[in-house]
Amino acid sequence: MYPKPIQKLIDIFKNFPTVGKRTATRFSFYLLNASDEEIDNLINALQKIKSTVHNCKFCQKSLEKDKKLCSICSDKSRNPQLAVVERETDLISLEETNQYNGYYFILGGNISPLRKQDLENIRLDKLKKRITKSEDFEVKQIKEVIIATNPTTEGESTGLFLQRALEDLNVKVTKLAKGLPVGGELEYADEDTLSSALEGRK
Amino acid sequence: MYPKPIQKLIDIFKNFPTVGKRTATRFSFYLLNASDEEIDNLINALQKIKSTVHNCKFCQKSLEKDKKLCSICSDKSRNPQLAVVERETDLISLEETNQYNGYYFILGGNISPLRKQDLENIRLDKLKKRITKSEDFEVKQIKEVIIATNPTTEGESTGLFLQRALEDLNVKVTKLAKGLPVGGELEYADEDTLSSALEGRK
Repeated sequence: MYPKPIQKLIDIFKNFPTVGKRTATRFSFYLLNASDEEIDNLINALQKIKSTVHNCKFCQKSLEKDKKLCSICSDKSRNPQLAVVERETDLISLEETNQYNGYYFILGGNISPLRKQDLENIRLDKLKKRITKSEDFEVKQIKEVIIATNPTTEGESTGLFLQRALEDLNVKVTKLAKGLPVGGELEYADEDTLSSALEGRK
Repeated sequence: MYPKPIQKLIDIFKNFPTVGKRTATRFSFYLLNASDEEIDNLINALQKIKSTVHNCKFCQKSLEKDKKLCSICSDKSRNPQLAVVERETDLISLEETNQYNGYYFILGGNISPLRKQDLENIRLDKLKKRITKSEDFEVKQIKEVIIATNPTTEGESTGLFLQRALEDLNVKVTKLAKGLPVGGELEYADEDTLSSALEGRK
């Protein structure tokens, strides 16, 4: 139905997270009608993202290539806690609470309960090295690991796996509390959330 | 918070239709973690879209540059009707009903009721020329113009404007019916839709 170059772009956008056929089509026509400058800006940004960004050696946060250490890992005044999150966006969300003043580690993914052997998704070795400081790490020794994976099936499964995997490391391991979201209403809470809220009452 | 190259990409994606800060961030990290091949494919598709696509001279539908006329405009067996739509995606939706067998014209936008003078958004001159065949058009003469703009404030305003603008052209002008959407429930229909359904009853 659409000319090939547009269909090609639609197919690419369909692979983006949360994007379906309809949105992919809207994106493609938005770009078809965009100015040459806008297209060039996007192409430029795409060309740069791979070549100028790498991961912080310690927390795996994205970092401009000319920097060695991210601002969080190089901050020696933080508490000796390590929040283990699935994605960098989770790290940002935790930082924005202003309630957490420890360090982070980005797993880079999660483990599905159906594919427990599929460990390539998460950076387990790097996490262990970060905790034990087994490599030459000029970062603070961690006293508590806070598992902050998502409260989804995959996130829970990853959390359980990590708890077991970190058992031998002689470090305290905790998990984020589950319960009613602040501002939410009991009436609309699902059963699992209510059960968690009951279980975790204090 | 994010490295500059990522922030740049987030800012660009924020301009995409229906995309907010959170989705733009997801897109950027999706691309950061995508393979080099995927990035190259996207860059390639972006470079091609402007240079290999132009608009059909008659209906303004997007068209590969080596083709002169789109498949609809070159089909002489269609009815002498011209559905005037805002966007190419509207054309596709109408085509997919298999109930319409006329021609199309893509306005390329709409007119806000607050900025009635802002006519640059729509291709009025080209529409008039298409209807009157005032240029050397090897396409069928149109007997009925069907205004198929969106039932939004802007679409309605554009429709009214077009009705007046086409008055002198000696062509029948009709508009798509408004009413209850098929499969919807009366209980959940908004007041305007219900009023339209009442008004258009037959």
